[in-house]
Amino acid sequence: MNVVLFAPSEVGPQGRVRLPAADRRARHLRSVLRVAAGDSVRVGILDGELGRAHVVCVAGDHIELACAFGEPAPGTQDVLVLAIPRPKVLLRCVETAAALGFAHILLVRTWRTDKSHVVASALAAPALRAHALLGLEQARRTRVPAIEVFPLFRPFVEDHLDARCAGASCWLADPEADLGIAQVADVPERPFALAIGPERGFTEFEREQLVANGFMAIHAGAHPLRVETALAFVSGQLVLRRAMR
Amino acid sequence: MNVVLFAPSEVGPQGRVRLPAADRRARHLRSVLRVAAGDSVRVGILDGELGRAHVVCVAGDHIELACAFGEPAPGTQDVLVLAIPRPKVLLRCVETAAALGFAHILLVRTWRTDKSHVVASALAAPALRAHALLGLEQARRTRVPAIEVFPLFRPFVEDHLDARCAGASCWLADPEADLGIAQVADVPERPFALAIGPERGFTEFEREQLVANGFMAIHAGAHPLRVETALAFVSGQLVLRRAMR
Repeated sequence: MNVVLFAPSEVGPQGRVRLPAADRRARHLRSVLRVAAGDSVRVGILDGELGRAHVVCVAGDHIELACAFGEPAPGTQDVLVLAIPRPKVLLRCVETAAALGFAHILLVRTWRTDKSHVVASALAAPALRAHALLGLEQARRTRVPAIEVFPLFRPFVEDHLDARCAGASCWLADPEADLGIAQVADVPERPFALAIGPERGFTEFEREQLVANGFMAIHAGAHPLRVETALAFVSGQLVLRRAMR
Repeated sequence: MNVVLFAPSEVGPQGRVRLPAADRRARHLRSVLRVAAGDSVRVGILDGELGRAHVVCVAGDHIELACAFGEPAPGTQDVLVLAIPRPKVLLRCVETAAALGFAHILLVRTWRTDKSHVVASALAAPALRAHALLGLEQARRTRVPAIEVFPLFRPFVEDHLDARCAGASCWLADPEADLGIAQVADVPERPFALAIGPERGFTEFEREQLVANGFMAIHAGAHPLRVETALAFVSGQLVLRRAMR
């Protein structure tokens, strides 16, 4: 946890925050960061600013902090389109995507998505949000990604994809693609949308639908990577190409 | 499993391989890939060539394959220097590093490596090798990375680092670095060595030692990433910069 995040409603007058001892963040402050009165910790407001907190008191039943915000928190408008992987991987990917700063995560059921992966408990909004917060805490970010679940691929592409990716440069990670990101002429300065298929790949039909909607297929070196690895590896490359313009 | 790998000693005359039903690969072929006689699967020889196998028979107690090798398997000479993370993360990182094609993985205990992470069972050669093979199977590679464990940082840097990184361009992933990879003048065409610290970072002394040994500090966008995410993210960027020369 590289930043402790609060909902705006948790922050009282003069930036005071009181966390009950049983709160996950209080437990982390106490057991992992081992804070004591007088220490300083990094804090942030969800969807708001970053800052620093002075630890006022560490009592048996609560921890009290005095926060000062004021540092603008970075944000992106990047979009992740992710074929729903198995629940454990899904939650790790949501965490990673939040850490990488994706603003919008679209979880899509594809033809080759295993039925058993479309599990209500992992796809429930509270579980997804909890893992997104873990990613923000890791990466010192505050912007909570919007996460949407689409149980059918075709209506997703036909009715929703365009609106979600408006203005973005769109990329489809595909081990069978002809081009790597090194060979692409240009990654524009604007936000990007990255689509990552299921372990066994998008079907030909799905790939064509994405390409017809402006996605360009790129490979990550012709070696199929696990979903989580591909997410970080290809994101790193897109972020770099965009920065090197 | 995108390729089924065999030790050279497992491959008989005319490329015949017989896997007992209890073998991990046989179980995968049967239960996940659901192969039947006549099917074709991708195969490879550890540290050797890739190829295709014809499934000769799927019997109750064994599976028999007729393999034809002959495709050269890609390899790199890249080196990963990794501060030992907690065992579960360590094994996932080894898998990821093998999938990304690292030839050499140096696991180093640093000052901020938690004592509890230096666990004999996860650092035992068979466990490390097993996870490296999972990464190769995922990424269709055959070159088994050499994995070494160094329980002390200073003797590692003073006595071993130079020899392991000879000829490589050397990079230190550091959220506090002044430069991102986009700002670096040049990533040479030769192999690279990438050093990734523990969750709480290298100490100032360790960082200085690495820099004195030719490592250049680079950040991955000023957001601290989890070890596994940083490994894939920064590797993607180094691979891309090297390819874009």
